[in-house]
Amino acid sequence: MTPRHSSPNQIWLGVSSFLGEMSMERTLVKDLPRHLKEEVLIKGWVERIRELSTVTFLILRDRIGRVQVAADPGLFAQSRISTESVVEMRGTVTPEPRAKAGYEVIAERITVLAHAENLPISINGPDLQVPPDLILDNRVLSLRHARINPIFKIQAALVHGFQTFLNQEGFVQVFTPKIVASGTEGGSELFSVQYFEEKAYLCQSPQFYKQMLVGSGYERVYEVGHVYRAEKHATSRHLNEYVSLDLGMGFIDSEHDIMELENRLLAYMLAYVAEQCPQELEALGVSLPEVPSIPKIPLAEALAVLEREYGKRMETQDLDPEGERLLSQYVKERTGSEFVFVTDYPWEKRPMYTMPKAGGLTCSFDLLFRGLEITTGGQRIHTYDLLTENIRRKGLDPNAFAFYVRNFAFGIPPHGGLAIGLERFTAQLLGLANVRQASLFPRDRHRLMP
Amino acid sequence: MTPRHSSPNQIWLGVSSFLGEMSMERTLVKDLPRHLKEEVLIKGWVERIRELSTVTFLILRDRIGRVQVAADPGLFAQSRISTESVVEMRGTVTPEPRAKAGYEVIAERITVLAHAENLPISINGPDLQVPPDLILDNRVLSLRHARINPIFKIQAALVHGFQTFLNQEGFVQVFTPKIVASGTEGGSELFSVQYFEEKAYLCQSPQFYKQMLVGSGYERVYEVGHVYRAEKHATSRHLNEYVSLDLGMGFIDSEHDIMELENRLLAYMLAYVAEQCPQELEALGVSLPEVPSIPKIPLAEALAVLEREYGKRMETQDLDPEGERLLSQYVKERTGSEFVFVTDYPWEKRPMYTMPKAGGLTCSFDLLFRGLEITTGGQRIHTYDLLTENIRRKGLDPNAFAFYVRNFAFGIPPHGGLAIGLERFTAQLLGLANVRQASLFPRDRHRLMP
Repeated sequence: MTPRHSSPNQIWLGVSSFLGEMSMERTLVKDLPRHLKEEVLIKGWVERIRELSTVTFLILRDRIGRVQVAADPGLFAQSRISTESVVEMRGTVTPEPRAKAGYEVIAERITVLAHAENLPISINGPDLQVPPDLILDNRVLSLRHARINPIFKIQAALVHGFQTFLNQEGFVQVFTPKIVASGTEGGSELFSVQYFEEKAYLCQSPQFYKQMLVGSGYERVYEVGHVYRAEKHATSRHLNEYVSLDLGMGFIDSEHDIMELENRLLAYMLAYVAEQCPQELEALGVSLPEVPSIPKIPLAEALAVLEREYGKRMETQDLDPEGERLLSQYVKERTGSEFVFVTDYPWEKRPMYTMPKAGGLTCSFDLLFRGLEITTGGQRIHTYDLLTENIRRKGLDPNAFAFYVRNFAFGIPPHGGLAIGLERFTAQLLGLANVRQASLFPRDRHRLMP
Repeated sequence: MTPRHSSPNQIWLGVSSFLGEMSMERTLVKDLPRHLKEEVLIKGWVERIRELSTVTFLILRDRIGRVQVAADPGLFAQSRISTESVVEMRGTVTPEPRAKAGYEVIAERITVLAHAENLPISINGPDLQVPPDLILDNRVLSLRHARINPIFKIQAALVHGFQTFLNQEGFVQVFTPKIVASGTEGGSELFSVQYFEEKAYLCQSPQFYKQMLVGSGYERVYEVGHVYRAEKHATSRHLNEYVSLDLGMGFIDSEHDIMELENRLLAYMLAYVAEQCPQELEALGVSLPEVPSIPKIPLAEALAVLEREYGKRMETQDLDPEGERLLSQYVKERTGSEFVFVTDYPWEKRPMYTMPKAGGLTCSFDLLFRGLEITTGGQRIHTYDLLTENIRRKGLDPNAFAFYVRNFAFGIPPHGGLAIGLERFTAQLLGLANVRQASLFPRDRHRLMP
């Protein structure tokens, strides 16, 4: 690996170095141990600078790793590098017992590819001591931080695990419209869009489309896409635009088939993250939970537990955030599981497409994970007569959803599905206090930027 | 495989048969050859019915295959099955030389899971002889057709090929906001959204976010997501909401690195489709193109070719649809390639983030495939001074994009990217005349439904 142009200590400043370096291939930091005592070309950001009298140490960070670089103070001074500048350096990988990795790169040439001005926030400390709004205002910088960057690599692995598992199970990935003529659940909490002459809305959920695609012969479909909720309250659990991991599955016997699928799906997703992201999990100090055979508890029983064990009495047939936390705690203490399915929600609490069952209940479930609901799912109604009747009982007009309802006259199999909120699941998994921390560019009540 | 409840000729009508059939597992049609002379439970849609005096033949279709079922006319009459009803049937897989597959299922019990009323369009012929608008109005039915259903399985494989290849190349899948405060290219052709008190827009392209994420340390990112263009003209090539396969890549030497990546990416995607979808390709009568080392031609040279070879003189420095077709034809005749990169577009024709080069040109390209542009890409500007200067030269105000522009003061590496229009690519690959045929639920100038 002898470069064609090698004049030690030559400094090339400026934006472009295309001609000079084309003869040598970049080595990623993670591959440096395979090039001990060789000359390499490394590229990345300058994370830290420490100037001593006889040597200047830099930490160079690329997309996967960090390495210590030692430079002659003269060479360094000429290059006028600031923290977070983008550089490429030629140098030799040299054993050095005092370096953390056991080696360092001795720089022979440094080229600044993009100079960084004074930074509005400091991102090279062990923790990012910056108020939440500044973290988001300066997202390109905060995402470079060692404890923030890994979040979205883990999130990507969760998504790819979701996709890979479902492909193996015969699901088809689909893309359904986000501009719609009406809401899924009757018109509340919708953002409106001016669609040429017409007023349209941003989709709250691909629910109708999933069901229609199950019925159009695909049987098993999934979608990874944005959904929109114009909820006016700002909480640590809500985003107004978020990514929904959605699936629909036909020819089920009951909602228990969907829960069984989700159980295996979650186990696969977490195993996939463990395999793909050991370094990222370590950087965040996170150990992944076991996914056991997830316990199930009917809502009525859950409410009885809360009253009996914690003296907590709910006014409605539902769990509030405190109830979700206490129930998760109860289940974890008794079974060891950090997941729990709450089943059999009452008819009043579920949307019109939910399959009813005896006792005023429905074939529905939520999945709680560490005290927070991360999935809603269940069996859906698949026959025309029951669907139209149920819509009317909800006080809605079946004609308002005609494009959806009419299909149930043409042969839709028994089916169900679920949706996992990606940012919520990521936040719970990684112990992030606020769901905004699990969104690259969150949209909330007060934030449309960046 | 002896079922617990087996009483031949028993008919169970009605919606639910959960209890009775729970003891036997469903066999997919594709797996029937492994169960010759065994009793099986099959589920699906009744695609065709042919009643003879001594036997009734049905074609049952599930998510992967079709099989002939022979039923006693008495059994059939009792079940009152209509075309496209959803059924489950118990029967024995029986060798039958006269059946296309060499076997058929002799039905012993038929249960209707969902009855289909009279259909508004007939979908069991070899071709769907229905006007385009009726195909989309009855999407759940038209998607069941043998020559329409495979389109979206192939599309899903294209997407999964895209994702798998880029994961292997170290890219991170990201999700960026679709509700934005301003447009990518200056404000034209945007759909507006009422975002609480503020006016916002639907994103035309994840361009700014891709660049910001490359610069936030991920270096390599991709997104599969919707983009929105409020174009008022209706053509066979445009949708107002479509899926964009987007990527951004840092530390490139020039736009040629992006073209080289796309060349390998396309080869992988098509090989993946060939491997995953042989049955679907055969159903559509499609053979996939070779992906050679894709030829490149600078735009100026392409225009000279059009004038010299076809007497076609363009008024502006650009290709119109006829020019794209003729150029593709020219390249195919001379090189055999159905793909061609057109490079070096003039500065006037490219957006403000495009890296300029000498001669009033830019580091940019389009990819034409079979006469249609399916990709736009290039190198982007990565330094603050050049970016603000270029924005001003375009007559725009850098402050209008401050959330984007300001990042270029904090160390963004040289980078580039591209976007592939999923529906366009699918349509060209499968020989579909209109891009609407490659969208499950298209949104266009006049269509918001279903």
